[in-house]
Amino acid sequence: MQLYSFFNSSTSYRVRIALALKGLAFDTIPVNIRVGEHRASAYVDEVNPSAVVPALVDGDMTLGQSLAILDYLDAKYPQVRLVPLDIETRARVLELSMLISCDIHPVNNLRILKYLQGPLALTAAQKDAWYQHWIADGMAGVERLLDKHGHGPWCFGDAPTLADVCLIPQIANAQRTGCDLSAYPKAMAVFEHASTHPAFLAAAPNRQPDYTA
Amino acid sequence: MQLYSFFNSSTSYRVRIALALKGLAFDTIPVNIRVGEHRASAYVDEVNPSAVVPALVDGDMTLGQSLAILDYLDAKYPQVRLVPLDIETRARVLELSMLISCDIHPVNNLRILKYLQGPLALTAAQKDAWYQHWIADGMAGVERLLDKHGHGPWCFGDAPTLADVCLIPQIANAQRTGCDLSAYPKAMAVFEHASTHPAFLAAAPNRQPDYTA
Repeated sequence: MQLYSFFNSSTSYRVRIALALKGLAFDTIPVNIRVGEHRASAYVDEVNPSAVVPALVDGDMTLGQSLAILDYLDAKYPQVRLVPLDIETRARVLELSMLISCDIHPVNNLRILKYLQGPLALTAAQKDAWYQHWIADGMAGVERLLDKHGHGPWCFGDAPTLADVCLIPQIANAQRTGCDLSAYPKAMAVFEHASTHPAFLAAAPNRQPDYTA
Repeated sequence: MQLYSFFNSSTSYRVRIALALKGLAFDTIPVNIRVGEHRASAYVDEVNPSAVVPALVDGDMTLGQSLAILDYLDAKYPQVRLVPLDIETRARVLELSMLISCDIHPVNNLRILKYLQGPLALTAAQKDAWYQHWIADGMAGVERLLDKHGHGPWCFGDAPTLADVCLIPQIANAQRTGCDLSAYPKAMAVFEHASTHPAFLAAAPNRQPDYTA
């Protein structure tokens, strides 16, 4: 199995956690999105028509989009499930996962921040305010969902699920960007719990072959 | 069943299509996101902690996030499936669905456009350029995926799937905003095909009780 990945990409980070939780070995093929390698024609034409990271190669299957990859891994390698089969639990896990994946992450990823500072010529302070605004808006929702439906030590009980796979990279990203996360104690308790788990440690940006400080 | 919905919300539109495809009756409870009704404490506390539309109420289950709702409907009412069970087809359907739901829709939704024109004080021309930039970027990926893996008349064959449920509202939204979509003939062929389907017609913004021109 090969994973096209960028060390600091939250969506690559999600898939790395899932592969580690499932005990699946893989080779990392670094794609440096800071210099646009995800837009190179060889990558777009042969690996990932979406022109983003990550992409997974598993035998004959080459697949992009982290949430599609995570669903595929659950279907193909179900020994450790990330999305429970029980309808109600499944719905809660997906609700939190999609809040992070659709409402928080996309508006703060690298291409957006580059557009803010490139074509829109915003200041660094305006860019930081943008980032922090959407983190505050989205994390308040995460905290409310955990408050209403969650139960520790993970988001939904005794084992990590897709919700944790999405939450941990998002919080790591927000911390790196200097956001104040003290208003989200339930989310931060999950983050602390994950911080000593071998799969989450192995998947962290600073453990990747393409890591640079 | 009740759906908290806004007529012009693409994510509400997705769920309305799914309910119609499955033949499930529901009452619409309008939430006017233009005036912030999705942020009212009664809605956030009692219906949807994510503070967005849509939200579905089905007996004891109250659920937010359109993709979580769509998965729930497939699990609970599988007579018409939106996400096939076959691993490979499922992966392709989800890949395209997530490209739209995570990479295109979130960066152009109402709250983002309001922030561009409010706190960032961009001109209408800058806001339109933003919208069109992300449509062009994302729809190029949609077209490449359809070119590589799709087969009509729907995105993936003879029956609508989650990919179509996500694609049609996105194209309708882009058309409404005046985007040139001529570079995406495969996607537009699917859109044309859907334009006479009763479920897609019934779910359209102009058929909703809260519609205003």
